[in-house]
Amino acid sequence: MFAVLPLLVEAAIAADTPQRNAPTMADVLAASKPADWRPLDPENTIYLELTPGRVVIELAPSFAPQHVRNVKALAREHYFDGLAILRCQDNYVVQWGDPNAEKPELKRQVQQAKPTLPPEFERAFEPKLPFTRLPDGDVYAPEVGFSGGFPVARDPKTGRMWLVHCYGMVGAGRDAAADSGGGTELYVVIGHGPRHLDRNVTLLGRVVQGIELLSALPRGTGPLGFYEKPEQRMPVKSIRIAADVLAAERSLLEVMRTDTPTFQDLIESRRNRREDWFHAQAGHIELCNVPIPVRRPGATQPTR
Amino acid sequence: MFAVLPLLVEAAIAADTPQRNAPTMADVLAASKPADWRPLDPENTIYLELTPGRVVIELAPSFAPQHVRNVKALAREHYFDGLAILRCQDNYVVQWGDPNAEKPELKRQVQQAKPTLPPEFERAFEPKLPFTRLPDGDVYAPEVGFSGGFPVARDPKTGRMWLVHCYGMVGAGRDAAADSGGGTELYVVIGHGPRHLDRNVTLLGRVVQGIELLSALPRGTGPLGFYEKPEQRMPVKSIRIAADVLAAERSLLEVMRTDTPTFQDLIESRRNRREDWFHAQAGHIELCNVPIPVRRPGATQPTR
Repeated sequence: MFAVLPLLVEAAIAADTPQRNAPTMADVLAASKPADWRPLDPENTIYLELTPGRVVIELAPSFAPQHVRNVKALAREHYFDGLAILRCQDNYVVQWGDPNAEKPELKRQVQQAKPTLPPEFERAFEPKLPFTRLPDGDVYAPEVGFSGGFPVARDPKTGRMWLVHCYGMVGAGRDAAADSGGGTELYVVIGHGPRHLDRNVTLLGRVVQGIELLSALPRGTGPLGFYEKPEQRMPVKSIRIAADVLAAERSLLEVMRTDTPTFQDLIESRRNRREDWFHAQAGHIELCNVPIPVRRPGATQPTR
Repeated sequence: MFAVLPLLVEAAIAADTPQRNAPTMADVLAASKPADWRPLDPENTIYLELTPGRVVIELAPSFAPQHVRNVKALAREHYFDGLAILRCQDNYVVQWGDPNAEKPELKRQVQQAKPTLPPEFERAFEPKLPFTRLPDGDVYAPEVGFSGGFPVARDPKTGRMWLVHCYGMVGAGRDAAADSGGGTELYVVIGHGPRHLDRNVTLLGRVVQGIELLSALPRGTGPLGFYEKPEQRMPVKSIRIAADVLAAERSLLEVMRTDTPTFQDLIESRRNRREDWFHAQAGHIELCNVPIPVRRPGATQPTR
């Protein structure tokens, strides 16, 4: 009975100081339960097929429902097949779309999908949307954390929340007008999180596998990293919705849930690194530095 | 005389709200004076020579004097010539060194330089060190800003300051012991700033040109992004100190000074983007998102 008090004191201290014996990320992953993981939903997963392989993108219908619907419609009418990666700007983005988008007589026609959409830069809070808040604040937003596997920010004053430009996030390129995007041109962040783009572009998903097929592309030498010659552009073979692909050809992946005590443990394991190599503990973590583990179903090691 | 008051009121408002007519970064660059720029010091610039081209690195002797001296000594004894890029981990680092470092009978011998050094993870404040503080805070450190062209953090409580892991920063790889580095193995950040490494590794410089030769390398498929086969490693032709290279073969570059009103204007132009494309102003900026422009001497356009 007397043993209870010391334990409580220890717990109180642990809340304020790094726990030297707390788990590393490897420990957290090893201790995770099947319920800490969720399979990708085939209806909300798309495959960007390139000659060297497949990029798997999880879509975010909770944050960009119209854009997600439209990108799926574009994929289903094979809009992207035979288009190309047009731009690779170092420490910024890779972007693909129609090389002839500016030439009315040559440009790819949209069929059932919409060529453009109103922006979905942000949305209202909703109680059903989970939010795992990070404890360390953020330079750009009042509150940041994770919702349904995506990095998000919130502003309690306005009641708005939005997806955030971290490495691997996927957005709908647009021209100067806010409603000039729609998903025909998509980009992926391949550098330090360009947070100034938050609430300026509709983000609609996140790369969960294969980003190295994009991030290691040769940088374009034109302004904004656009390729200057057509032969420098890697072709887009296709974009397909996972649900439309034969089950045997799908990339079966599980993503760690971001609304669990296990994910909280993972965050803590990255705020204070307990691996022997580390001499100084950061004590804090920035949103875009929190990894969201991905694995093959039931595997003990994450794919990244 | 009565016209003065409205102007003052306007100025007071401007301090709190984004100035819609304030200059863009392009305006700031166009208006910059020769004194806003400084040439690279050939004694503190090294060239990493690779088959596809040259990576130019500015060294930071104010923050890592021993490591800078040692890397220069290593370069002068041609230690790096014929070594290789060993590791390319996506969204993290590219690292080069001796492929045989773990094989005592095969490893490259250090001559006049030192194989290892005590760490230079941080240093004391000193009045002569400039510090341009950012107004928006930081998740990891009490104060952040720029000193002599490098991103730095400070802690007034301890009187310490240190270089920060932003994109392009160069550090000395080490094993588990804090004093096991020294510069024989060097890495460059090619992803979202891995700030948890701050004060855990000696940073000693920053890539000012050619980072795309490293960031676009194929990712290594082994653990931590190490290449699994020798033939996958890009050879390091040499590392030379700019001062040791014929004047005609030097990369003549100027870096924008970070201790001027012009650089303050540049920071402001990035905190609130006035380009037409932007609909929402961030109102803040994170240290690693502030660009440090580089140009050929007297050029009107920066090289990046």
